Amino acid sequence: MKFSPLLDEMIKALQVLPGVGPKSAQRMAFQLLERERSRGVRLAQTLTRALTEIGHCSQCRTFTENEQCELCASPKRAENGLLCVVESPADVAAIEQTGHYSGRYFVLMGHLSPLDGIGPQELGLEILEQRLRAEQIEELILATNPTIEGDATAYYIAEMARAAGVKVSRIAHGVPVGGELELVDGTTLSHSLMGRQPLI
Amino acid sequence: MKFSPLLDEMIKALQVLPGVGPKSAQRMAFQLLERERSRGVRLAQTLTRALTEIGHCSQCRTFTENEQCELCASPKRAENGLLCVVESPADVAAIEQTGHYSGRYFVLMGHLSPLDGIGPQELGLEILEQRLRAEQIEELILATNPTIEGDATAYYIAEMARAAGVKVSRIAHGVPVGGELELVDGTTLSHSLMGRQPLI
Repeated sequence: MKFSPLLDEMIKALQVLPGVGPKSAQRMAFQLLERERSRGVRLAQTLTRALTEIGHCSQCRTFTENEQCELCASPKRAENGLLCVVESPADVAAIEQTGHYSGRYFVLMGHLSPLDGIGPQELGLEILEQRLRAEQIEELILATNPTIEGDATAYYIAEMARAAGVKVSRIAHGVPVGGELELVDGTTLSHSLMGRQPLI
Repeated sequence: MKFSPLLDEMIKALQVLPGVGPKSAQRMAFQLLERERSRGVRLAQTLTRALTEIGHCSQCRTFTENEQCELCASPKRAENGLLCVVESPADVAAIEQTGHYSGRYFVLMGHLSPLDGIGPQELGLEILEQRLRAEQIEELILATNPTIEGDATAYYIAEMARAAGVKVSRIAHGVPVGGELELVDGTTLSHSLMGRQPLI
Protein backbone atom coordinates (compact mmCIF):
# COMPACT_ATOMS: atom_id res chain seq x y z
CA MET A 1 0.00 0.00 0.00
CA LYS A 2 1.55 3.27 -1.12
CA PHE A 3 -1.22 5.73 -0.28
CA SER A 4 -4.35 5.78 1.85
CA PRO A 5 -6.71 2.84 1.10
CA LEU A 6 -9.28 4.99 -0.71
CA LEU A 7 -6.65 6.78 -2.79
CA ASP A 8 -5.12 3.41 -3.70
CA GLU A 9 -8.57 2.21 -4.74
CA MET A 10 -9.10 5.34 -6.84
CA ILE A 11 -5.77 4.86 -8.64
CA LYS A 12 -6.60 1.21 -9.29
CA ALA A 13 -10.11 2.02 -10.56
CA LEU A 14 -8.76 4.57 -13.05
CA GLN A 15 -6.70 1.83 -14.69
CA VAL A 16 -9.86 0.37 -16.22
CA LEU A 17 -9.46 3.13 -18.83
CA PRO A 18 -7.56 2.00 -21.95
CA GLY A 19 -3.96 3.24 -22.11
CA VAL A 20 -3.90 4.19 -18.44
CA GLY A 21 -1.25 2.43 -16.33
CA PRO A 22 -0.31 2.88 -12.66
CA LYS A 23 1.75 6.05 -13.27
CA SER A 24 -0.82 7.93 -15.33
CA ALA A 25 -3.62 6.77 -13.01
CA GLN A 26 -1.68 8.28 -10.11
CA ARG A 27 -1.21 11.53 -12.00
CA MET A 28 -4.94 11.61 -12.85
CA ALA A 29 -5.93 10.97 -9.23
CA PHE A 30 -3.65 13.74 -7.93
CA GLN A 31 -4.84 16.19 -10.56
CA LEU A 32 -8.50 15.51 -9.76
CA LEU A 33 -7.94 15.74 -6.00
CA GLU A 34 -5.80 18.86 -6.15
CA ARG A 35 -7.48 20.94 -8.80
CA GLU A 36 -10.56 19.39 -10.38
CA ARG A 37 -12.78 18.06 -7.59
CA SER A 38 -16.05 19.48 -8.87
CA ARG A 39 -15.40 18.54 -12.50
CA GLY A 40 -14.25 15.13 -11.30
CA VAL A 41 -17.53 14.57 -9.47
CA ARG A 42 -19.36 15.65 -12.61
CA LEU A 43 -17.29 13.14 -14.60
CA ALA A 44 -18.36 10.40 -12.17
CA GLN A 45 -22.03 11.36 -12.50
CA THR A 46 -21.85 11.47 -16.30
CA LEU A 47 -20.09 8.09 -16.38
CA THR A 48 -22.77 6.49 -14.22
CA ARG A 49 -25.58 7.95 -16.33
CA ALA A 50 -23.93 7.10 -19.65
CA LEU A 51 -23.01 3.55 -18.67
CA THR A 52 -26.50 2.76 -17.44
CA GLU A 53 -28.56 4.65 -20.04
CA ILE A 54 -26.65 4.27 -23.31
CA GLY A 55 -27.66 1.20 -25.27
CA HIS A 56 -27.76 0.32 -28.93
CA CYS A 57 -30.00 1.77 -31.64
CA SER A 58 -32.61 -0.86 -32.51
CA GLN A 59 -32.08 -0.19 -36.22
CA CYS A 60 -28.37 0.38 -36.77
CA ARG A 61 -26.84 -0.78 -33.47
CA THR A 62 -24.84 2.40 -32.84
CA PHE A 63 -24.62 3.79 -29.31
CA THR A 64 -27.59 5.87 -28.25
CA GLU A 65 -29.59 6.50 -25.10
CA ASN A 66 -32.82 6.46 -27.12
CA GLU A 67 -34.56 3.56 -28.79
CA GLN A 68 -33.43 4.84 -32.20
CA CYS A 69 -30.43 7.02 -33.01
CA GLU A 70 -30.90 10.41 -34.59
CA LEU A 71 -29.81 9.27 -38.07
CA CYS A 72 -32.20 6.31 -38.12
CA ALA A 73 -35.04 8.47 -36.79
CA SER A 74 -34.65 11.00 -39.61
CA PRO A 75 -36.91 10.12 -42.60
CA LYS A 76 -34.65 12.22 -44.86
CA ARG A 77 -31.91 9.66 -44.45
CA ALA A 78 -34.04 6.92 -46.01
CA GLU A 79 -34.72 8.87 -49.23
CA ASN A 80 -31.78 7.70 -51.32
CA GLY A 81 -32.08 4.07 -50.19
CA LEU A 82 -28.36 3.78 -49.32
CA LEU A 83 -27.18 1.73 -46.36
CA CYS A 84 -23.54 1.88 -45.30
CA VAL A 85 -22.03 -0.86 -43.12
CA VAL A 86 -19.21 0.25 -40.79
CA GLU A 87 -17.39 -1.35 -37.90
CA SER A 88 -17.76 1.33 -35.21
CA PRO A 89 -19.63 4.54 -34.28
CA ALA A 90 -16.35 6.42 -34.82
CA ASP A 91 -16.50 5.35 -38.48
CA VAL A 92 -19.99 6.84 -38.73
CA ALA A 93 -18.63 10.11 -37.37
CA ALA A 94 -15.73 10.03 -39.86
CA ILE A 95 -18.03 9.44 -42.85
CA GLU A 96 -20.51 12.05 -41.64
CA GLN A 97 -17.69 14.58 -41.48
CA THR A 98 -16.95 14.15 -45.20
CA GLY A 99 -20.42 15.49 -46.00
CA HIS A 100 -20.57 13.17 -49.04
CA TYR A 101 -23.01 10.62 -47.69
CA SER A 102 -26.63 11.16 -46.78
CA GLY A 103 -27.94 7.61 -46.39
CA ARG A 104 -28.28 5.40 -43.34
CA TYR A 105 -25.75 3.28 -41.50
CA PHE A 106 -25.45 -0.13 -39.97
CA VAL A 107 -22.83 -0.37 -37.23
CA LEU A 108 -21.37 -3.85 -36.68
CA MET A 109 -19.59 -2.93 -33.41
CA GLY A 110 -16.64 -5.05 -34.46
CA HIS A 111 -15.74 -7.52 -37.18
CA LEU A 112 -15.98 -11.27 -37.65
CA SER A 113 -13.31 -12.90 -35.52
CA PRO A 114 -14.15 -16.55 -34.83
CA LEU A 115 -11.09 -17.02 -32.58
CA ASP A 116 -12.42 -14.33 -30.22
CA GLY A 117 -15.91 -15.82 -30.36
CA ILE A 118 -17.28 -13.01 -32.52
CA GLY A 119 -19.58 -14.52 -35.12
CA PRO A 120 -22.47 -13.16 -37.25
CA GLN A 121 -24.76 -13.06 -34.22
CA GLU A 122 -22.43 -10.85 -32.17
CA LEU A 123 -22.39 -8.37 -35.07
CA GLY A 124 -26.18 -8.28 -35.25
CA LEU A 125 -26.18 -9.60 -38.82
CA GLU A 126 -29.66 -11.10 -38.37
CA ILE A 127 -30.96 -7.55 -37.89
CA LEU A 128 -29.15 -6.49 -41.06
CA GLU A 129 -30.57 -9.45 -43.01
CA GLN A 130 -34.07 -8.57 -41.85
CA ARG A 131 -33.57 -4.97 -42.97
CA LEU A 132 -32.21 -6.08 -46.35
CA ARG A 133 -35.42 -8.02 -46.95
CA ALA A 134 -37.94 -5.65 -45.34
CA GLU A 135 -36.67 -2.22 -46.43
CA GLN A 136 -36.35 -0.60 -49.83
CA ILE A 137 -32.53 -0.62 -50.01
CA GLU A 138 -31.04 0.46 -53.34
CA GLU A 139 -27.43 -0.25 -52.47
CA LEU A 140 -25.48 -1.67 -49.55
CA ILE A 141 -22.08 0.03 -49.21
CA LEU A 142 -19.49 -1.97 -47.28
CA ALA A 143 -17.12 0.37 -45.45
CA THR A 144 -15.48 -2.06 -43.05
CA ASN A 145 -11.77 -1.52 -42.41
CA PRO A 146 -9.31 -2.67 -45.10
CA THR A 147 -7.85 -5.34 -42.81
CA ILE A 148 -8.04 -9.12 -43.13
CA GLU A 149 -10.92 -9.30 -40.66
CA GLY A 150 -12.67 -6.28 -42.17
CA ASP A 151 -12.39 -7.78 -45.66
CA ALA A 152 -13.67 -11.17 -44.49
CA THR A 153 -16.62 -9.46 -42.80
CA ALA A 154 -17.34 -7.50 -45.99
CA TYR A 155 -17.38 -10.67 -48.12
CA TYR A 156 -19.66 -12.42 -45.65
CA ILE A 157 -22.14 -9.54 -45.72
CA ALA A 158 -21.83 -9.25 -49.53
CA GLU A 159 -22.99 -12.88 -49.85
CA MET A 160 -25.92 -12.10 -47.58
CA ALA A 161 -26.89 -9.09 -49.67
CA ARG A 162 -26.64 -11.01 -52.92
CA ALA A 163 -28.95 -13.70 -51.49
CA ALA A 164 -31.43 -10.97 -50.58
CA GLY A 165 -31.16 -9.47 -54.05
CA VAL A 166 -29.64 -6.19 -52.93
CA LYS A 167 -26.91 -4.42 -54.95
CA VAL A 168 -23.72 -4.32 -52.93
CA SER A 169 -20.46 -2.31 -53.22
CA ARG A 170 -17.22 -1.83 -51.32
CA ILE A 171 -15.53 1.54 -50.72
CA ALA A 172 -12.44 2.11 -52.88
CA HIS A 173 -9.00 1.26 -51.56
CA GLY A 174 -6.00 2.93 -53.10
CA VAL A 175 -3.42 5.68 -52.79
CA PRO A 176 -4.53 8.25 -50.18
CA VAL A 177 -5.15 11.69 -51.68
CA GLY A 178 -2.09 13.88 -51.08
CA GLY A 179 0.14 10.84 -50.57
CA GLU A 180 3.21 10.07 -52.65
CA LEU A 181 3.30 6.92 -54.75
CA GLU A 182 6.79 5.88 -53.67
CA LEU A 183 5.79 5.96 -50.00
CA VAL A 184 2.68 3.81 -50.42
CA ASP A 185 2.95 0.10 -49.56
CA GLY A 186 2.71 -2.53 -52.30
CA THR A 187 -0.69 -3.97 -51.33
CA THR A 188 -2.33 -0.55 -51.41
CA LEU A 189 -0.70 0.20 -54.75
CA SER A 190 -1.95 -3.08 -56.29
CA HIS A 191 -5.43 -2.25 -55.00
CA SER A 192 -5.26 1.18 -56.59
CA LEU A 193 -4.21 -0.39 -59.90
CA MET A 194 -6.94 -3.03 -59.84
CA GLY A 195 -9.53 -0.44 -58.88
CA ARG A 196 -8.57 2.03 -61.63
CA GLN A 197 -11.37 4.16 -63.06
CA PRO A 198 -11.93 5.37 -66.64
CA LEU A 199 -10.89 9.01 -66.78
CA ILE A 200 -12.88 10.46 -69.71
CA MET B 1 -22.63 16.86 -32.58
CA LYS B 2 -20.95 13.66 -33.66
CA PHE B 3 -22.68 11.13 -31.38
CA SER B 4 -25.80 10.96 -29.24
CA PRO B 5 -26.02 13.86 -26.71
CA LEU B 6 -25.21 11.68 -23.70
CA LEU B 7 -22.26 10.00 -25.44
CA ASP B 8 -20.96 13.43 -26.48
CA GLU B 9 -21.27 14.56 -22.86
CA MET B 10 -19.41 11.45 -21.67
CA ILE B 11 -16.55 12.05 -24.12
CA LYS B 12 -16.34 15.68 -23.04
CA ALA B 13 -16.39 14.81 -19.33
CA LEU B 14 -13.51 12.33 -19.74
CA GLN B 15 -11.32 15.16 -21.03
CA VAL B 16 -11.05 16.56 -17.50
CA LEU B 17 -8.40 13.86 -16.98
CA PRO B 18 -4.84 15.09 -17.63
CA GLY B 19 -3.37 13.94 -20.92
CA VAL B 20 -6.76 12.94 -22.34
CA GLY B 21 -7.80 14.74 -25.53
CA PRO B 22 -10.89 14.22 -27.73
CA LYS B 23 -9.50 11.13 -29.49
CA SER B 24 -8.45 9.21 -26.38
CA ALA B 25 -11.64 10.27 -24.57
CA GLN B 26 -13.62 8.76 -27.47
CA ARG B 27 -11.59 5.55 -27.28
CA MET B 28 -12.13 5.40 -23.51
CA ALA B 29 -15.88 5.94 -23.86
CA PHE B 30 -16.21 3.20 -26.51
CA GLN B 31 -14.10 0.77 -24.49
CA LEU B 32 -16.20 1.35 -21.35
CA LEU B 33 -19.50 1.08 -23.23
CA GLU B 34 -18.51 -1.98 -25.23
CA ARG B 35 -16.59 -4.06 -22.77
CA GLU B 36 -16.26 -2.58 -19.28
CA ARG B 37 -19.68 -1.36 -18.19
CA SER B 38 -19.63 -2.83 -14.69
CA ARG B 39 -16.03 -1.82 -13.98
CA GLY B 40 -16.83 1.61 -15.43
CA VAL B 41 -19.72 2.05 -13.04
CA ARG B 42 -17.44 0.98 -10.20
CA LEU B 43 -14.90 3.57 -11.38
CA ALA B 44 -17.61 6.25 -11.20
CA GLN B 45 -18.60 5.20 -7.69
CA THR B 46 -14.99 5.15 -6.49
CA LEU B 47 -14.37 8.57 -8.04
CA THR B 48 -17.38 10.07 -6.28
CA ARG B 49 -16.39 8.58 -2.94
CA ALA B 50 -12.73 9.53 -3.26
CA LEU B 51 -13.41 13.08 -4.41
CA THR B 52 -15.82 13.76 -1.57
CA GLU B 53 -14.09 11.86 1.24
CA ILE B 54 -10.36 12.35 0.65
CA GLY B 55 -8.96 15.42 2.35
CA HIS B 56 -5.59 16.37 3.78
CA CYS B 57 -3.84 14.91 6.83
CA SER B 58 -4.01 17.48 9.62
CA GLN B 59 -0.34 16.89 10.45
CA CYS B 60 1.51 16.42 7.17
CA ARG B 61 -1.05 17.56 4.56
CA THR B 62 -0.84 14.43 2.42
CA PHE B 63 -4.03 12.98 0.91
CA THR B 64 -6.04 10.82 3.28
CA GLU B 65 -9.68 10.08 3.99
CA ASN B 66 -8.95 10.07 7.74
CA GLU B 67 -8.08 12.96 10.03
CA GLN B 68 -4.47 11.75 10.17
CA CYS B 69 -2.59 9.68 7.61
CA GLU B 70 -1.20 6.29 8.57
CA LEU B 71 2.40 7.50 8.81
CA CYS B 72 1.55 10.41 11.11
CA ALA B 73 -0.67 8.18 13.25
CA SER B 74 2.15 5.69 13.85
CA PRO B 75 4.12 6.56 17.05
CA LYS B 76 7.09 4.55 15.73
CA ARG B 77 7.63 7.16 13.04
CA ALA B 78 8.26 9.87 15.64
CA GLU B 79 11.05 7.97 17.40
CA ASN B 80 14.03 9.24 15.43
CA GLY B 81 12.80 12.83 15.35
CA LEU B 82 13.32 13.21 11.61
CA LEU B 83 10.92 15.25 9.46
CA CYS B 84 11.25 15.17 5.69
CA VAL B 85 9.70 17.91 3.54
CA VAL B 86 8.55 16.84 0.06
CA GLU B 87 6.46 18.43 -2.67
CA SER B 88 3.87 15.70 -3.30
CA PRO B 89 2.41 12.44 -1.96
CA ALA B 90 4.13 10.66 -4.86
CA ASP B 91 7.48 11.77 -3.40
CA VAL B 92 6.48 10.20 -0.07
CA ALA B 93 5.77 6.94 -1.89
CA ALA B 94 9.14 7.13 -3.69
CA ILE B 95 11.09 7.70 -0.47
CA GLU B 96 9.14 5.00 1.37
CA GLN B 97 10.03 2.57 -1.37
CA THR B 98 13.76 3.07 -0.73
CA GLY B 99 13.30 1.64 2.77
CA HIS B 100 16.02 3.99 4.05
CA TYR B 101 13.86 6.48 5.90
CA SER B 102 11.72 5.84 8.93
CA GLY B 103 10.81 9.35 10.07
CA ARG B 104 7.80 11.50 9.34
CA TYR B 105 6.93 13.66 6.36
CA PHE B 106 5.54 17.05 5.59
CA VAL B 107 3.92 17.32 2.18
CA LEU B 108 3.83 20.83 0.68
CA MET B 109 1.45 19.91 -2.16
CA GLY B 110 3.44 22.09 -4.53
CA HIS B 111 6.24 24.62 -4.32
CA LEU B 112 6.50 28.37 -3.86
CA SER B 113 5.44 30.04 -7.09
CA PRO B 114 4.42 33.66 -6.50
CA LEU B 115 3.38 34.17 -10.14
CA ASP B 116 0.78 31.40 -9.78
CA GLY B 117 -0.36 32.81 -6.46
CA ILE B 118 1.23 29.99 -4.46
CA GLY B 119 2.80 31.49 -1.34
CA PRO B 120 3.76 30.10 2.08
CA GLN B 121 0.14 29.89 3.13
CA GLU B 122 -0.90 27.72 0.18
CA LEU B 123 1.87 25.28 1.12
CA GLY B 124 0.70 25.11 4.75
CA LEU B 125 3.98 26.49 6.02
CA GLU B 126 2.33 27.89 9.14
CA ILE B 127 1.46 24.31 10.12
CA LEU B 128 5.09 23.34 9.54
CA GLU B 129 6.35 26.28 11.62
CA GLN B 130 4.04 25.31 14.46
CA ARG B 131 5.33 21.74 14.34
CA LEU B 132 8.94 22.92 14.31
CA ARG B 133 8.32 24.79 17.56
CA ALA B 134 5.98 22.35 19.28
CA GLU B 135 7.49 18.97 18.42
CA GLN B 136 10.84 17.42 19.31
CA ILE B 137 12.37 17.52 15.81
CA GLU B 138 16.04 16.53 15.59
CA GLU B 139 16.50 17.30 11.92
CA LEU B 140 14.45 18.72 9.09
CA ILE B 141 15.37 17.10 5.76
CA LEU B 142 14.46 19.15 2.68
CA ALA B 143 13.64 16.84 -0.22
CA THR B 144 11.93 19.26 -2.59
CA ASN B 145 12.67 18.80 -6.28
CA PRO B 146 16.03 20.06 -7.58
CA THR B 147 14.36 22.72 -9.72
CA ILE B 148 14.50 26.50 -9.37
CA GLU B 149 11.16 26.56 -7.54
CA GLY B 150 12.03 23.52 -5.42
CA ASP B 151 15.36 25.09 -4.42
CA ALA B 152 13.72 28.42 -3.58
CA THR B 153 11.14 26.62 -1.46
CA ALA B 154 13.91 24.69 0.31
CA TYR B 155 15.79 27.89 1.15
CA TYR B 156 12.64 29.55 2.44
CA ILE B 157 11.90 26.61 4.74
CA ALA B 158 15.55 26.38 5.80
CA GLU B 159 15.37 29.98 7.05
CA MET B 160 12.20 29.11 8.95
CA ALA B 161 13.87 26.11 10.57
CA ARG B 162 16.95 28.08 11.53
CA ALA B 163 14.74 30.68 13.20
CA ALA B 164 13.06 27.90 15.15
CA GLY B 165 16.45 26.46 16.13
CA VAL B 166 16.00 23.17 14.24
CA LYS B 167 18.89 21.52 12.38
CA VAL B 168 18.16 21.46 8.67
CA SER B 169 19.64 19.54 5.73
CA ARG B 170 19.04 19.11 1.98
CA ILE B 171 19.16 15.76 0.16
CA ALA B 172 22.28 15.28 -1.97
CA HIS B 173 22.24 16.18 -5.65
CA GLY B 174 24.78 14.58 -7.92
CA VAL B 175 25.47 11.90 -10.50
CA PRO B 176 22.68 9.25 -10.43
CA VAL B 177 23.94 5.83 -9.37
CA GLY B 178 24.52 3.68 -12.46
CA GLY B 179 24.77 6.76 -14.68
CA GLU B 180 27.80 7.63 -16.79
CA LEU B 181 29.72 10.82 -16.08
CA GLU B 182 29.94 11.89 -19.72
CA LEU B 183 26.16 11.77 -20.10
CA VAL B 184 25.39 13.86 -17.01
CA ASP B 185 24.60 17.55 -17.51
CA GLY B 186 27.03 20.20 -16.27
CA THR B 187 24.89 21.56 -13.43
CA THR B 188 24.45 18.13 -11.91
CA LEU B 189 28.16 17.45 -12.26
CA SER B 190 29.08 20.73 -10.50
CA HIS B 191 26.63 19.80 -7.73
CA SER B 192 28.27 16.41 -7.36
CA LEU B 193 31.71 18.03 -7.14
CA MET B 194 30.61 20.62 -4.57
CA GLY B 195 28.85 17.96 -2.54
CA ARG B 196 31.81 15.54 -2.50
CA GLN B 197 32.16 13.37 0.61
CA PRO B 198 35.33 12.17 2.41
CA LEU B 199 35.87 8.55 1.43
CA ILE B 200 37.87 7.07 4.30
